[in-house]
Amino acid sequence: MKVALFGAGRIGKVHAASIKTDPRSELVAVTDVVTDAAQALADEHGIVSRPAGDILADTSIDAILIASSTNTHADLIEAGVKAGKAIFCEKPIDLDLERALKVRQIARHHDKPMMMGFNRRFDPNFAALKAALDAGEIGKGELLTVTSYDPAPPPASYIKVSGGLYRDMMIHDFDMCAFLFGMPKTVTAHGSCLVDPAIGAAGDIDTAVVVLTYADGRLATIRNSRRAPYGYDQRVEVLGSQGALAVRNEVENSVEKSTAGGVVSSKPVYFFLERYMRAFAIEWAGFVGSCLDGTPVPASIQDGVNALALAEAANRSLAEGRPVEVTAGMTGG
Amino acid sequence: MKVALFGAGRIGKVHAASIKTDPRSELVAVTDVVTDAAQALADEHGIVSRPAGDILADTSIDAILIASSTNTHADLIEAGVKAGKAIFCEKPIDLDLERALKVRQIARHHDKPMMMGFNRRFDPNFAALKAALDAGEIGKGELLTVTSYDPAPPPASYIKVSGGLYRDMMIHDFDMCAFLFGMPKTVTAHGSCLVDPAIGAAGDIDTAVVVLTYADGRLATIRNSRRAPYGYDQRVEVLGSQGALAVRNEVENSVEKSTAGGVVSSKPVYFFLERYMRAFAIEWAGFVGSCLDGTPVPASIQDGVNALALAEAANRSLAEGRPVEVTAGMTGG
Amino acid sequence: MKVALFGAGRIGKVHAASIKTDPRSELVAVTDVVTDAAQALADEHGIVSRPAGDILADTSIDAILIASSTNTHADLIEAGVKAGKAIFCEKPIDLDLERALKVRQIARHHDKPMMMGFNRRFDPNFAALKAALDAGEIGKGELLTVTSYDPAPPPASYIKVSGGLYRDMMIHDFDMCAFLFGMPKTVTAHGSCLVDPAIGAAGDIDTAVVVLTYADGRLATIRNSRRAPYGYDQRVEVLGSQGALAVRNEVENSVEKSTAGGVVSSKPVYFFLERYMRAFAIEWAGFVGSCLDGTPVPASIQDGVNALALAEAANRSLAEGRPVEVTAGMTGG
Amino acid sequence: MKVALFGAGRIGKVHAASIKTDPRSELVAVTDVVTDAAQALADEHGIVSRPAGDILADTSIDAILIASSTNTHADLIEAGVKAGKAIFCEKPIDLDLERALKVRQIARHHDKPMMMGFNRRFDPNFAALKAALDAGEIGKGELLTVTSYDPAPPPASYIKVSGGLYRDMMIHDFDMCAFLFGMPKTVTAHGSCLVDPAIGAAGDIDTAVVVLTYADGRLATIRNSRRAPYGYDQRVEVLGSQGALAVRNEVENSVEKSTAGGVVSSKPVYFFLERYMRAFAIEWAGFVGSCLDGTPVPASIQDGVNALALAEAANRSLAEGRPVEVTAGMTGG
Repeated sequence: MKVALFGAGRIGKVHAASIKTDPRSELVAVTDVVTDAAQALADEHGIVSRPAGDILADTSIDAILIASSTNTHADLIEAGVKAGKAIFCEKPIDLDLERALKVRQIARHHDKPMMMGFNRRFDPNFAALKAALDAGEIGKGELLTVTSYDPAPPPASYIKVSGGLYRDMMIHDFDMCAFLFGMPKTVTAHGSCLVDPAIGAAGDIDTAVVVLTYADGRLATIRNSRRAPYGYDQRVEVLGSQGALAVRNEVENSVEKSTAGGVVSSKPVYFFLERYMRAFAIEWAGFVGSCLDGTPVPASIQDGVNALALAEAANRSLAEGRPVEVTAGMTGG
Repeated sequence: MKVALFGAGRIGKVHAASIKTDPRSELVAVTDVVTDAAQALADEHGIVSRPAGDILADTSIDAILIASSTNTHADLIEAGVKAGKAIFCEKPIDLDLERALKVRQIARHHDKPMMMGFNRRFDPNFAALKAALDAGEIGKGELLTVTSYDPAPPPASYIKVSGGLYRDMMIHDFDMCAFLFGMPKTVTAHGSCLVDPAIGAAGDIDTAVVVLTYADGRLATIRNSRRAPYGYDQRVEVLGSQGALAVRNEVENSVEKSTAGGVVSSKPVYFFLERYMRAFAIEWAGFVGSCLDGTPVPASIQDGVNALALAEAANRSLAEGRPVEVTAGMTGG
Repeated sequence: MKVALFGAGRIGKVHAASIKTDPRSELVAVTDVVTDAAQALADEHGIVSRPAGDILADTSIDAILIASSTNTHADLIEAGVKAGKAIFCEKPIDLDLERALKVRQIARHHDKPMMMGFNRRFDPNFAALKAALDAGEIGKGELLTVTSYDPAPPPASYIKVSGGLYRDMMIHDFDMCAFLFGMPKTVTAHGSCLVDPAIGAAGDIDTAVVVLTYADGRLATIRNSRRAPYGYDQRVEVLGSQGALAVRNEVENSVEKSTAGGVVSSKPVYFFLERYMRAFAIEWAGFVGSCLDGTPVPASIQDGVNALALAEAANRSLAEGRPVEVTAGMTGG
Repeated sequence: MKVALFGAGRIGKVHAASIKTDPRSELVAVTDVVTDAAQALADEHGIVSRPAGDILADTSIDAILIASSTNTHADLIEAGVKAGKAIFCEKPIDLDLERALKVRQIARHHDKPMMMGFNRRFDPNFAALKAALDAGEIGKGELLTVTSYDPAPPPASYIKVSGGLYRDMMIHDFDMCAFLFGMPKTVTAHGSCLVDPAIGAAGDIDTAVVVLTYADGRLATIRNSRRAPYGYDQRVEVLGSQGALAVRNEVENSVEKSTAGGVVSSKPVYFFLERYMRAFAIEWAGFVGSCLDGTPVPASIQDGVNALALAEAANRSLAEGRPVEVTAGMTGG
């Protein structure tokens, strides 16, 4: 299976490496508007850097992996559909929910796999938690808490084009809630700027708590912060009718030091590359599997729409200071 | 220091035992409307069972400990003030905030210690967390999460007179938030009946998430459930600008068993008697210290009003489906 | 059940407190060659300080608790037997194995309970481990490791009268091995003076590893140090044919602090008073139970002889640089 | 740097994968007496399978990696030296200490890197422990314990050619002791057959405790079992004058499940491939670094001799039932 990569930035490099971990797929080309970046990545992998149009026109290429900047995702998905490629796209589909719904409409009749890059679903820890939950090991899930703290805030320049915390950062956590509990009925958002005043000046928040309520009474809470001085804090807890499940952080090493000052163990691994390295590879294998076997993709474009709709609801909730209902219209239902 | 106990039920017995742990105080009498219960407790401790009026009139008695049913608290505090006794009262002051504010008004000019039984403040774990937070060990606190799950729900008959989850159960967690972060600006409540339909039939919820926002942008989340099949789940987490603090559960024992089935360690201790046994003793020592040294009580009647005001706001928020502001009027400020 | 205490030193005070935790027993008298110490303890507990002879002659006293200095234990046990008292004696019976065997001979025909104070058997953690082991939860035990590090070494003056590390400190661990695995076939001892040269100058060691081999091939290892800067380190591990059991340390509190410097949790509780407080009370309840119900004592004088025999074998092994067999003669078998 | 691999069995495959993780090295050929195995591995990696002699004669090949059966190691090292190759050899040099000493003599004047595959030195956990120990973070090391339990015993057929537990399995732990504490003065070995009677019938043990004493009084204990039903148990503890360091096991995932039955967390990863996957890659990078930069190899042929000498001493100690001195002659000193 021949693959071309759109985007040679940080996340593009991650995916280039992931593609190599699966012997069933082969990275054959890369493109980027920053041609130097594309060329450097091409050289590193012994492949060619080509214009986007050429790649789409090349019928020997089976799949495209979209890891370019967010504002290009929707156009590239549409172009990929037109070109008949299998498509793997990094989250989000678009910052605009209306646009995302249109893309979904177009992709609906695509007869090739179209998958969204919600990498956390493939983290072995979260996957094990979901498996245990689905197997009924703690009865019926009732209270879900998703915690996601970045180690350090991005620069304000990034914040300005990010679409805001809910669409840029919490979107992963919205997807985690949807992954584990399905779609909620209401979204109530709270948020502040506590970490970096420049983030507030850019019109965004850096600290947030969002509560989701479900039609059957279940509740979910998401906690986000742009700064956890001890590293990337990525945890999930579910309380169920017969027990609880929790994913703790993965840590740098297993050394424990005991002195008069206390018992010191290792910090969580620093950031998403360290924490989700394995998840990216498993995610890619899932996409390749869908391409080769025709099995449904493990994270669909509808999942991408759903997470975006929750982010949109959170934005409205924060702006209006009230719970916001998640309607069928918001998710194209 | 001679002490009389009002109430010979479950919590009364706990306090009778606590009084004995401090050599500076002596339990001399007990009273209860269920005279048999009072007599049994009196016999067990080698003291006398007397009518409430006699106790209040007995000038040799320095302090009264109110552990009777909630609906008697306000009257007994007022009677205790009139009788010139030092007063220790179990939470809450009353289920009605207006009544509590009146009691506070009366107690304001009392020249003897008047303390509320917020036992969790005295748990060595939470106390150590607060000390570290106040010492700036994690910088400025930003995100607080208080988790409190009971092992099993009470009978519906109890629910009916309890005042509801927010005033009966979460009041401890409201106090914990006030203890660690002070009084919030808004309260947003969510809640469902998932554990026992009889609780819902009694007009109450058994599963709840409440978010508090603070004027300076800090956020706090409280999670409650009436059922945690693995035992009493009592945790607190604070994310700060320079780190995080967490209180984990105390467990039954430190044995770890590793087999092909996994690594099994001990459950959290079962319920509040096991978990807060030490806290009750430390709490009592704090009251005795205030009585003997004139130092301020570590949990005042204002703290009791504050927690009740937050519960009241939560009730309103849940009923009206919107965030509720905590006003100065609500706390008698 | 009326009890008299012999010895008003540190361990005597611990036992005086333990006696009070069991309502079935009552401390009525104390004696000590340091009469001031006896009087102080008597005053604290509202009892009388009396000469040892008077106590032994007083037929209203049912039991004696021997917590005086080691060199008085054997004589007092013999006197207690003669006086027809139930006897609880702190470890060891005597520093001399021959003497201990004679005491055992005399006590053999005593018709009252005679119990040795091996407090660790009653620690809820070790007791839970033994229960799981005996229940076959990890199959058959194969490899046992007992770890016991004191937080700080005693003064050299104490070392001189202590009987040496094996008889003074490791005797508890020998008993733990006997408690869990029974009596071994050989003892091989290693030891050094690494902590305090004054201990070496006093002819003793402060760091030791002893290996016990069992007739059926099982192996046990004991690790001792007189110094663990992080607190009292008291652990046990058993590897069995179907799994493993481990007792971890009990810690000061459950607070965990995460900062850029690492994740810091609490140290083990400082020393034996903190760690074994509960064990002392449970131990005493066991003795009272034997006195009242006639059930066998949970730690017999034979257990005291056994532990001493292992210490004696360790001393010989260290001196001669070779494994030493544990013979029937050494344990009076 | 072009590399040829000797041995296409289990450990050969591990090394073939490791070689690929370092872009500075390239696997170009493989050889094995089982030519089908060699061809299969060659096919998998797109390289050639060649006779050993051809590889040694090929001057374009810079380094050989010896992962063939133990009885070929010594001859291949000598052949590699003669052919002027850099040499990486799996442990042990040979089962016979005399033979190993001769190989070391020959390798002494080799001007290319010659490294032994003591993979555990490169495990990030053990490496972090050593770094902390060497940095004096716990003062001076005093008591070392190395625990190594395999998940399940090998077949008796393997046992027969293995050289016995001390040379086959504990050799890694002897190296760990030497790595952390240096070479000891005495070795005292204990061992039994508890896991599988077929192992005993083959003249070997499957459960062992060995104590090492050091000239300066430090002590080390090694615990081995061929069976830990919960997975590969690989831990190290050091007690030092100012604290302690411990490496805990790495676990399968970070999920924790709490139910009425207890709190269950994940088992240790199953065996050495899972646990030491990263270590093999880091080890190989260390060898490549030595080849390219001329820095000393991080595990030398002397280290290989030293570990073998300790295994030899353990065999003698077990046979003779006494401590055995480690002499300069044994390590070619």
